[in-house]
Amino acid sequence: MKKLNTSPISGMQELLPKEQAVFNKFKDCVREVYKHRGFLEIETPVIDRAEILFAKAGGETEKQIYKVVKTEEAAEGADQALRFDHTVPLARYIVEHESDLAFPFRVTQIGRNYRGERAQKGRFREFYQADIDVLGRNELAIEYDAEVILTLSEALDALHLPPKLVRVSNRKILVGFLEELNLQEVASEIFSIVDHAEKVPLEKTKEWLAELSIGNERVDSVMNFIDIAGDRADVISRLNSFGFENQKFTEGLQELDKVLSILESQGLEGSVVADMKIVRGLDYYTGTVFETILPDYKEIGSICSGGRYENLAELYTDQKFPGVGGSIGLTRLFYVLNEYGLINEADVERRRYAVVPFGNSEPEVEMAYKVARKLREQGEDVDIVFADKKLGDKIKFAGKTADYLIVIGDDEVRTGTFGVKDLMTGETTTSEI
Amino acid sequence: MKKLNTSPISGMQELLPKEQAVFNKFKDCVREVYKHRGFLEIETPVIDRAEILFAKAGGETEKQIYKVVKTEEAAEGADQALRFDHTVPLARYIVEHESDLAFPFRVTQIGRNYRGERAQKGRFREFYQADIDVLGRNELAIEYDAEVILTLSEALDALHLPPKLVRVSNRKILVGFLEELNLQEVASEIFSIVDHAEKVPLEKTKEWLAELSIGNERVDSVMNFIDIAGDRADVISRLNSFGFENQKFTEGLQELDKVLSILESQGLEGSVVADMKIVRGLDYYTGTVFETILPDYKEIGSICSGGRYENLAELYTDQKFPGVGGSIGLTRLFYVLNEYGLINEADVERRRYAVVPFGNSEPEVEMAYKVARKLREQGEDVDIVFADKKLGDKIKFAGKTADYLIVIGDDEVRTGTFGVKDLMTGETTTSEI
Repeated sequence: MKKLNTSPISGMQELLPKEQAVFNKFKDCVREVYKHRGFLEIETPVIDRAEILFAKAGGETEKQIYKVVKTEEAAEGADQALRFDHTVPLARYIVEHESDLAFPFRVTQIGRNYRGERAQKGRFREFYQADIDVLGRNELAIEYDAEVILTLSEALDALHLPPKLVRVSNRKILVGFLEELNLQEVASEIFSIVDHAEKVPLEKTKEWLAELSIGNERVDSVMNFIDIAGDRADVISRLNSFGFENQKFTEGLQELDKVLSILESQGLEGSVVADMKIVRGLDYYTGTVFETILPDYKEIGSICSGGRYENLAELYTDQKFPGVGGSIGLTRLFYVLNEYGLINEADVERRRYAVVPFGNSEPEVEMAYKVARKLREQGEDVDIVFADKKLGDKIKFAGKTADYLIVIGDDEVRTGTFGVKDLMTGETTTSEI
Repeated sequence: MKKLNTSPISGMQELLPKEQAVFNKFKDCVREVYKHRGFLEIETPVIDRAEILFAKAGGETEKQIYKVVKTEEAAEGADQALRFDHTVPLARYIVEHESDLAFPFRVTQIGRNYRGERAQKGRFREFYQADIDVLGRNELAIEYDAEVILTLSEALDALHLPPKLVRVSNRKILVGFLEELNLQEVASEIFSIVDHAEKVPLEKTKEWLAELSIGNERVDSVMNFIDIAGDRADVISRLNSFGFENQKFTEGLQELDKVLSILESQGLEGSVVADMKIVRGLDYYTGTVFETILPDYKEIGSICSGGRYENLAELYTDQKFPGVGGSIGLTRLFYVLNEYGLINEADVERRRYAVVPFGNSEPEVEMAYKVARKLREQGEDVDIVFADKKLGDKIKFAGKTADYLIVIGDDEVRTGTFGVKDLMTGETTTSEI
C-alpha cells in the first residue's frame, strides 16, 4: 500500500530503464555529431540570477519562470530562478568568460530547462534541449549559418527519423519587401501574421492583413509573397523578378542564396527548400531563419529550428556578439516519436548479459565473476544475479532485464565451458573461460 | 563594459570549454563502468513534491532544500522543491514503477543535485553525484555489497587517480558490541562520536565518551574497539577474540568477512581494509558501510562512500526494499583533484582539428568541407574556420582551440594535398584528399 503520492509531478518526464536507455542513446548521438563538427560543450548552472533571466524573458515566458527560494527565505526576496532556455545563460557566459574564449566560438549546450507551462499532453515543464551556437565578436561569416543547419541536420539523421525537410528563409527579405511596400509601421504585426499563416486557413490570414487597413493591393502582394516556396533557383528567381533595389532585400537574398548553395552542395539537396512563410516568432532573429519538419508527419510541427541574431548579449555588455544557433527539443521529440511509434528500441539499445551462479556456491560465484569480467573486458554490459532464488525465478528475472543468459552450475565449473543463451532467439552458443 | 553582474551564482560550478571536456570525460568514464557492470540508468525529475523531499530530509539538510515557485504563486503555497540527493527520488521511483521493474534492480543515477549550503571554497550548491544502488524486494544477497564496492572502485580506477584505499566496516558489529557492553541507551551518541573520531584528537574522543558517564573501563573498551583496523584476517581474528555470542555482532562479522573475501579475490587485495572507525553519519545504514580515501592526500577526506540499508521506501509503502548503494561526488572530486594538480588534461581530452580556408574562396571552402568530412568520418572533431581574417589571426585562433591545423589555399586546391600541423610539436605531415 502506498502511503504517499509517488507519481512524478505532472509535466515531468520519468522513464523506465529501457526507455531511458533509448533516450540517452538519442542524446549521446546528437552530442557526438555536435562534437565531430567542432562544437565545444559547456554547461551553465540551472539556477541563475533572476535579474539575468527576467531581463530577457518577457511575455508568456516570464510568467513561466520558476523562482527558487531556500526554505527559510521569503519568496519576495528570491533573486534566483531556474533557466528557461540555453540562450540567456549563454549570453551571460560569453560576457563573463570572454577573455578566455576564442571567437568564432562554436558552442553546444545539452541539458534540462524549466518552464512552468500549463500541464497538457506532450508539453513538458522540465525538458532537454540540445543547442548549438556559433558566436562571433563584432562579425560572423555567413557560412556559419549553413554550418549550424548542416550540423543539426546531421544530428537528426543520426536518430534515424523519417525523411525530413529543412525550410529556410532570411528575415531581411521580408523586412526589405515591407519597406518597398511602405509597410514599415505595421511590420511587426505582419511578421506575426506570417508566423501564424500555416496554423490558420488562408482566408484568416487575408482577413488579418485586411484589418491593418493597408489596401487590397498590398494585402494581395503580401499574400503572394508568403506563398513563395521551393528550391533555391526557383525562389531566388521569383524574388529577383520583383526588381527591388532595396538594400535589406538584396542582402537577404544574397545571404539566402549563399546558405542554400552550401546546404545543397553538402548533402541536403532535395531535403531543403526556401520558404517565405518561415519567419520564426522570436524578435531577436535578424537574418537566416529555419525550421525542420517531417513531411509525412506534418502535424508534429517543427522539430528543430533556429536562426541568426545580431547581438546576443546587448543587455549585459556594449560589446557586440553576433551569432547563429539552433536547437533540438529532445524531450518533446522523443515523446512525439514514441507516440507515432517511430522509435525502434532494438535499434539503439545496448545488449545486456545476465550471469547466474546456479546455487550461489563459492566455485560457481567465482566462475561467474570470471565470465562477467571477460565479457566486460569485451565491452559488454553484464549483470551477475546473486538472488537466493530457485533457478526458474532467476531465469524469469534475467528474461526481464537481459538479452543473453549464462547459467553457471556444477557442470560449468567442472568443464570450464558455459552456454550463452540468446533470450530473443532461444539459441545457445557454447563458450569457454 | 558590463551592464549587469554576469558571474554565476556563488556555489555553482561553471567551467571553461577545456575544463568542461575533462569533467564530461570523467562523467562518461564513470557511467561506462557502471553500465558494464549491469547498472541500468534512470533519471528522476530535478523538481519533486515537497512532501516527498521533506519527509526524508531532516536536520541540516532540510534547511538547505531549495523550494521552487512559479512567478505568480506565493512561496507559502509552494509544494515543490529541488532534489538534494538521488536516494529520495529513487525511493519514490521504486514505489511508483515497482510493477515494471525486476528485482534485484541494479540502478544508476548520474545528475545534478541541489543544496543551499553556506557558500565556501570547495562546497557546491549545485553538484553532480554518480550513484549506484542495488535494490531487492524483501531480501537482497550480501554479495551485492561487494558488487557495489567493486563497481565504484573500478569507476575510480578509470579516472586514473593516485592509489586509493577502501575502508569497510559493518554497523552490526558496533551495534552488537554496544549490546554486549550494555550501552544500547547511548548507542546513537557513541555512533556519532566514532563517526567524528578521525576529525579530532584522540583525547577529545575519550573525553566525549567519558561525558556519557559509562565508566572508565567501558570508555577504554570502546577506544580499543575503534582502533581495530587492518587486513581481513587480522581484523576478523581480533574481533573473534572478544568471544561474543551476540547475534548482531556475529552476523556483522560474517557479513564483513564475506564482503572482504570477495573484494580481495576480485582485485582489491592491498587496497581494502577493515576499519572499525567507519560507521558513516547517516542513520539509515544498517550493515556494510564503506568509504574511500587517497592515502597520499588524506586531507581530501572520503571521495566515495555508501552502505547497506534495510528499507529504502518505508515512508511511502509497506513493501520492503532492502538495498546497498554508494556514490561518487563528481563535482567536488573534480574540484579537489584540480586543486591538487591531479588531473592531466591531455590524458583525457579529445583532439580537435581546425581547417582554415585561406581566403574563403569557393574552391578553398569546398576543399575544406571535403577535408573536414573525411576527418569527421574517421571520428575526429573538426572545426572549419570561416572568419574573414588575415591568416595570422586565423592561425592564432586555431592555436587557442585546436590541436591540429590544416590550411587550405591555392596550392592545396591545385594539388589535392594538404598539411596537418601538430600545434603541440610543430610537426607537419602531408595527406591527400
